[in-house]
Amino acid sequence: MIFQRIESEGLAHYSYLIGDGRDAAVIDPRFDCDIYVEKAHFAGFRIRHIFETHRHEDFVLGSAALAERAGAVIWHADGQWPYKYGQTVRQGQKWNIGRLIIEALSSPGHTPGSMSYLIHDPNGKAWMVFTGDALFAGDVGRVDFMGMDEAPRMAGLLYDTIFGTLLPLGDGVIVCPAHGAGSVCASDIGERMWTTIGLERLHNRKLQVKDQNEFISLTAKKLEYPPYFRFMEKLNLEGPSFTCHLPLPLSVREFVQMAQDSVIVDTRTEVAFSASHVPGSLSIWLSGIPAFAGWFLPYDRPILLVNETDNPDQVVRYLARLGYKNIAGFLAGGMLAWQVAGNESATIRTVTVHEFCSVIDQKGLPWLLDIRSASELDHTGRLIGAYHIHLTELQERMDEVPKDRPVYIFCASGLRSMVAASFLKRAGWEDLIVVLGGLTGWKSVSCPVRK
Amino acid sequence: MIFQRIESEGLAHYSYLIGDGRDAAVIDPRFDCDIYVEKAHFAGFRIRHIFETHRHEDFVLGSAALAERAGAVIWHADGQWPYKYGQTVRQGQKWNIGRLIIEALSSPGHTPGSMSYLIHDPNGKAWMVFTGDALFAGDVGRVDFMGMDEAPRMAGLLYDTIFGTLLPLGDGVIVCPAHGAGSVCASDIGERMWTTIGLERLHNRKLQVKDQNEFISLTAKKLEYPPYFRFMEKLNLEGPSFTCHLPLPLSVREFVQMAQDSVIVDTRTEVAFSASHVPGSLSIWLSGIPAFAGWFLPYDRPILLVNETDNPDQVVRYLARLGYKNIAGFLAGGMLAWQVAGNESATIRTVTVHEFCSVIDQKGLPWLLDIRSASELDHTGRLIGAYHIHLTELQERMDEVPKDRPVYIFCASGLRSMVAASFLKRAGWEDLIVVLGGLTGWKSVSCPVRK
Amino acid sequence: MIFQRIESEGLAHYSYLIGDGRDAAVIDPRFDCDIYVEKAHFAGFRIRHIFETHRHEDFVLGSAALAERAGAVIWHADGQWPYKYGQTVRQGQKWNIGRLIIEALSSPGHTPGSMSYLIHDPNGKAWMVFTGDALFAGDVGRVDFMGMDEAPRMAGLLYDTIFGTLLPLGDGVIVCPAHGAGSVCASDIGERMWTTIGLERLHNRKLQVKDQNEFISLTAKKLEYPPYFRFMEKLNLEGPSFTCHLPLPLSVREFVQMAQDSVIVDTRTEVAFSASHVPGSLSIWLSGIPAFAGWFLPYDRPILLVNETDNPDQVVRYLARLGYKNIAGFLAGGMLAWQVAGNESATIRTVTVHEFCSVIDQKGLPWLLDIRSASELDHTGRLIGAYHIHLTELQERMDEVPKDRPVYIFCASGLRSMVAASFLKRAGWEDLIVVLGGLTGWKSVSCPVRK
Amino acid sequence: MIFQRIESEGLAHYSYLIGDGRDAAVIDPRFDCDIYVEKAHFAGFRIRHIFETHRHEDFVLGSAALAERAGAVIWHADGQWPYKYGQTVRQGQKWNIGRLIIEALSSPGHTPGSMSYLIHDPNGKAWMVFTGDALFAGDVGRVDFMGMDEAPRMAGLLYDTIFGTLLPLGDGVIVCPAHGAGSVCASDIGERMWTTIGLERLHNRKLQVKDQNEFISLTAKKLEYPPYFRFMEKLNLEGPSFTCHLPLPLSVREFVQMAQDSVIVDTRTEVAFSASHVPGSLSIWLSGIPAFAGWFLPYDRPILLVNETDNPDQVVRYLARLGYKNIAGFLAGGMLAWQVAGNESATIRTVTVHEFCSVIDQKGLPWLLDIRSASELDHTGRLIGAYHIHLTELQERMDEVPKDRPVYIFCASGLRSMVAASFLKRAGWEDLIVVLGGLTGWKSVSCPVRK
Repeated sequence: MIFQRIESEGLAHYSYLIGDGRDAAVIDPRFDCDIYVEKAHFAGFRIRHIFETHRHEDFVLGSAALAERAGAVIWHADGQWPYKYGQTVRQGQKWNIGRLIIEALSSPGHTPGSMSYLIHDPNGKAWMVFTGDALFAGDVGRVDFMGMDEAPRMAGLLYDTIFGTLLPLGDGVIVCPAHGAGSVCASDIGERMWTTIGLERLHNRKLQVKDQNEFISLTAKKLEYPPYFRFMEKLNLEGPSFTCHLPLPLSVREFVQMAQDSVIVDTRTEVAFSASHVPGSLSIWLSGIPAFAGWFLPYDRPILLVNETDNPDQVVRYLARLGYKNIAGFLAGGMLAWQVAGNESATIRTVTVHEFCSVIDQKGLPWLLDIRSASELDHTGRLIGAYHIHLTELQERMDEVPKDRPVYIFCASGLRSMVAASFLKRAGWEDLIVVLGGLTGWKSVSCPVRK
Repeated sequence: MIFQRIESEGLAHYSYLIGDGRDAAVIDPRFDCDIYVEKAHFAGFRIRHIFETHRHEDFVLGSAALAERAGAVIWHADGQWPYKYGQTVRQGQKWNIGRLIIEALSSPGHTPGSMSYLIHDPNGKAWMVFTGDALFAGDVGRVDFMGMDEAPRMAGLLYDTIFGTLLPLGDGVIVCPAHGAGSVCASDIGERMWTTIGLERLHNRKLQVKDQNEFISLTAKKLEYPPYFRFMEKLNLEGPSFTCHLPLPLSVREFVQMAQDSVIVDTRTEVAFSASHVPGSLSIWLSGIPAFAGWFLPYDRPILLVNETDNPDQVVRYLARLGYKNIAGFLAGGMLAWQVAGNESATIRTVTVHEFCSVIDQKGLPWLLDIRSASELDHTGRLIGAYHIHLTELQERMDEVPKDRPVYIFCASGLRSMVAASFLKRAGWEDLIVVLGGLTGWKSVSCPVRK
Repeated sequence: MIFQRIESEGLAHYSYLIGDGRDAAVIDPRFDCDIYVEKAHFAGFRIRHIFETHRHEDFVLGSAALAERAGAVIWHADGQWPYKYGQTVRQGQKWNIGRLIIEALSSPGHTPGSMSYLIHDPNGKAWMVFTGDALFAGDVGRVDFMGMDEAPRMAGLLYDTIFGTLLPLGDGVIVCPAHGAGSVCASDIGERMWTTIGLERLHNRKLQVKDQNEFISLTAKKLEYPPYFRFMEKLNLEGPSFTCHLPLPLSVREFVQMAQDSVIVDTRTEVAFSASHVPGSLSIWLSGIPAFAGWFLPYDRPILLVNETDNPDQVVRYLARLGYKNIAGFLAGGMLAWQVAGNESATIRTVTVHEFCSVIDQKGLPWLLDIRSASELDHTGRLIGAYHIHLTELQERMDEVPKDRPVYIFCASGLRSMVAASFLKRAGWEDLIVVLGGLTGWKSVSCPVRK
Repeated sequence: MIFQRIESEGLAHYSYLIGDGRDAAVIDPRFDCDIYVEKAHFAGFRIRHIFETHRHEDFVLGSAALAERAGAVIWHADGQWPYKYGQTVRQGQKWNIGRLIIEALSSPGHTPGSMSYLIHDPNGKAWMVFTGDALFAGDVGRVDFMGMDEAPRMAGLLYDTIFGTLLPLGDGVIVCPAHGAGSVCASDIGERMWTTIGLERLHNRKLQVKDQNEFISLTAKKLEYPPYFRFMEKLNLEGPSFTCHLPLPLSVREFVQMAQDSVIVDTRTEVAFSASHVPGSLSIWLSGIPAFAGWFLPYDRPILLVNETDNPDQVVRYLARLGYKNIAGFLAGGMLAWQVAGNESATIRTVTVHEFCSVIDQKGLPWLLDIRSASELDHTGRLIGAYHIHLTELQERMDEVPKDRPVYIFCASGLRSMVAASFLKRAGWEDLIVVLGGLTGWKSVSCPVRK
């Protein structure tokens, strides 16, 4: 028997490989699907079925590529939508994987046609349930994808799914959702890395409601909707099949030539970026790519990379999972090559929290841009006098940021502030200062924070 | 947060790495402990504590080596025994790992001083419990290690541990035992690779008892006791610290010279061994090493290896986990080198199940040695007319095997039969025939099997 | 600067990566070309040019695939042939790779349009020369590919190439040929793994001639011509572009179903094969695949694999280099799965050299088939009374092997004998015995060998 | 047969593995010697002999550790010195490695007892020669280690070695030295990555002399002598045997506590360091560690690391090769962890070459510190008005740097300038500015450079 959770960092996406005898199945595979084939084959398993819990919005499903590689059958939930490949799952449908039985349970709410998949162990007992985006550890799936008009109705469906279908499976049943903490598919997934029906019944805040109405009012909320979601939804209906080659190393000269029509992304740390970067480039630190690339990078223009090393493998993988196949190349030799070629490099000012305190002390509160999310503000407190625009809204609201005075940018650590600063700088702002260490650092030096 | 189960194949041993913030702990580490350090460090965690659920009998604990590498503190259960290193855990003792709290729960039964460790999640809720050899998926720990006189008393303690301490934790709590299916530390661990209190409460056959007495009569049984257990118990009290280097490649000439005083183990497949092997060598196929080496290999004589390839890395790792540091070398170039050097090689006859049927058909039932375990006999049926000696008892009972007629050897697949055949052959038996495919193969060709 | 030789085992094919500054070139790339891209890119080099020394006959060139991956330009030698891709090199043409200069030197002989490529170091001095199949360590390229009528003329061209173009480069120049010891592209490449013009001038036996005529008579010889060469020549003109996925693991049932129309190749050791194999399968041990698959395996029928493990990765790579894309699957679980499924397995008898001596002693010399090459016979001696058919000729000459008596098969070690035995058995021969250890083993036991 | 050159980056150290049959030898092994064992063993070779060309000064020899691992014999050159392990080589001594013969050739000059090792191929012909630090590609070994008084005599010996012993081996013989370009063991090793006697005879500038006197005057020069050389010389006589564990990840709090008595090394890029670093830390970028650590880091105080990632593996390996076993830990989470903990971080100013031109333009030439080597100044030109102190002399000559005005620091690229800046800053200098891109960048923007 084999059971593995494959975690895709940044997206906090969980997919699963489960097998018995010589047969295996994969639930919600990601784009770079070699991992399933290798883990299965080298252990003597053949992937026979690919199950989707719903049409994912936040990443490219690897079902089509995996089906071709493994000779497997694709089973779509959300069969009401016009998939160009695979087959549609029916409520109650069952499959054998060796001695295991997998059963499809209709689980609408996050999407109208979501499915959960219940695993019965070799003795026929309910064992595990793949809940997709219906039920997470500490949270439930968002219900706003059909529009806010529909959200209450979807929330009602989700209530029925959870209380009518999932919880009755029994407290001991293991819950395997499609996302962990950090995903944008729910507002507040917890850090209980593995969970059960019983733990969720007792401790999931969204389930501590007295009736469906309370549940609806608690969950029918509008959450952020990154622009790339639309593109993912489309790709996932079409059965995307593109291969991702490593991008070409570009000489400084080639890089300059191509830079004209391209978007440049610099994946180094915020401090390295601050000290020297290619003018006009956007800062998104490596592990921030899965979460933020989809807000800022286009699908229809070449993307150029600047990295810490000459191996752009991981950036490319992260971007491919979001459907980006337009990565044209990377700066061979990195910023050092750029500098020794005598090219102009740009900087963005930073201050430590101590220096920032001195600034406040000496000059009073500057214009302060807090780019954290609303939920962070709720959880960890607001900054006195700060202007709040969530990083993901910056593109639309940048006019609210003044150009005629220094703008100090703030987040939890400084990483996202540099994304914001690089974006604003590219758009013409000049006097930008990133506060290193962010709120977390600031707190520790007894600077004023209003709870 | 980090949580990983590290599985040691063959031994079916599970150890765990859990961390939060920058602190981590390891439960029941194995001998080759680099894996914990690397997984922890490269994710930014420092291993602060090493928890043992009990003094393990079936493998060398890596606590001492890991403590030195990681700068961690060792916490022993079974503090009644004279450990030469580490500290003793007290019932109810608590530790912080980031925001997690680990709490020691006294869990006697398998050993007198066994401990379980309960993890409270960041909100203080019972989340996971490391049950060691107290509670497994589908089984409970064996209670015969203190001797059969003590077994009923130990079983009674185990009943109290399970019904009084573990089950009350709640159905939703995740159970993390020290072993999975295939371990010798219980008679019948199930294949539910992950489990919960609720699943065990409902489906664990040993827990479906009406009272403590029924539990005792169900569990107070003598199970097999491999000879190497005594050595492991001793090593684990002393805090073993030996390093395992890859053994030297030996030329055929060197191999022959050293063979005199050594035990030769051939880890190739049963069919390769049958066709050609170094005279006097013992067959234990590679993945059978963890389970069977401890029955047959000495600690006080050099061990020589014959492998399929020139890389003995995995054999050495498997043997090191059992405390073997006496691996002197391996035959460079394998059997091919042996053969082209013109050395005599030996063979052991094999028959397919079809050929075996013909034998029975033409000559009547031969003397048939079934070396499967008693539990296999119960589960999958006996062979008419077969003489039964479990492989692990062969060393003591070989006199029961006749030397004056052909002996057909049988197991589930043929792998263990070759171990038995090679052992008997070394001890002087000559007319030995291994049935390839074993009972599983035989069943499929409609040969007579009595249920 | 970067310079690496990439060796493809079995084919004894050498390709080269050379770079300076940020530019690199590859000479004679193999099919699985990721290795060049990764080695180059991760060191900050971009592959700009791909140079072919000639249209290779013995493996699939990776030029087309590499050019696409790396954005490189392909430069063909043998421009007289109708390539469907790339550009043709001219004698004397030069390219810059950083501060290095690469210069094309016309080197006909092995093929009419062969090219060598001379590297000038940063100071403009002759440094290394990529000689393709013109000059090897200890040998020169074969000249029979244009037919034996043309061979003397080609040999004459090769004489001029070597004595007129290559040797004058100077004794200190490093020679980088396309093949090492074991290749079929010359009769007798030596084991001087790295060589120079000076070493070849002094020690290469083919160069110790008094004039062109002696050279021609020494080299204008017909060598073996594996049937797959024609296919390679065609593929290499067309610019092959197929991707190789890992084949599917097949259940025993699926394997049986597909076996009907397929060719089964068993890559385990000769002894494992002898003891149990799928009836009708062909034995080619893993590292014998590059050298022998091309003689025995078809391109137009599915190929099924039986391996030692469930990871067929290396077999597939070896076969892909020979242009095989028709690998349908592999037997999941290997022969053990086959046996426990109760399927009939076949055997081939083996004898040790000692047993073989006894046979001779007791029954006189049996019918003995020596399947070594003519050159091996010359070098290491003939066997008294043996009938000689080189393994590569067996397909055409099998009628010369008797069916009515035991046939003992002989090679240097026993590996190739098992290939021959499996081939003959599939064709209907029944009484076949492989001599383990072969001639090498036999010699050591004082059995009669005639020099 | 096996032949591999193992290159240790940064030190530009070459060691070699050569084998035939099943026997192998290693020449001048490095400290982390697993690589030889694995490459040899997995190819079926046993390392029988370890040959040292001389007592190396610039890295820890791995002979003792390798001998223990591989069961090999150590052969020391420089037998006049009191080695505490191994055996001493005699001029003319020979060893068999399979069919190869290795012959010791006395080669004094770099050290009094240096040896070269000549490989005779299976036919007895001179094939390759391991020249240690006697003869490199494009240069010869330095002769100043016995003191400048002795240098002319040593140079005379080296002349005899090269002209009397090595060159007569023949132009075609392949030369395998102990170092490549970038080593400190000669002034000017060339980039001919592989070379031959013939190429050196023709193109090595040091060999283009009319007699011994000219050679002596050309080579008997004092070169830099890093302080760690003394320690290496001592270690290599003693047979160092220390194991290197990965250092512990330290929380910010632990790091701060330990920082008091430690030396902090930051291996991130120069730009990342400039923008934010732990106050008092020394900047040595990762690949600069092998070359510069030995000048700046003590052996007797704990070393703390700050890295780009949480994996300090490579830094530790680099430092171990220089004999550093005092690496106490690394900052877990890197500078981000430092910043979010609210700790003060420091900065060092940088300017681009364009900004630097503006500075000159507006304010005239500032105080400019050029920390390149004398040989770089010769090769690539001096900067008008720059004050020259080679980086390696900075420790002793820092008083020459003014504290009362801005100091602009210059090297070829900016990397070493940051080492200098961090060193000066720690010593109390405050107004330091690193010119990014260095001279290479400056040249491309038409700033004044005097040849």
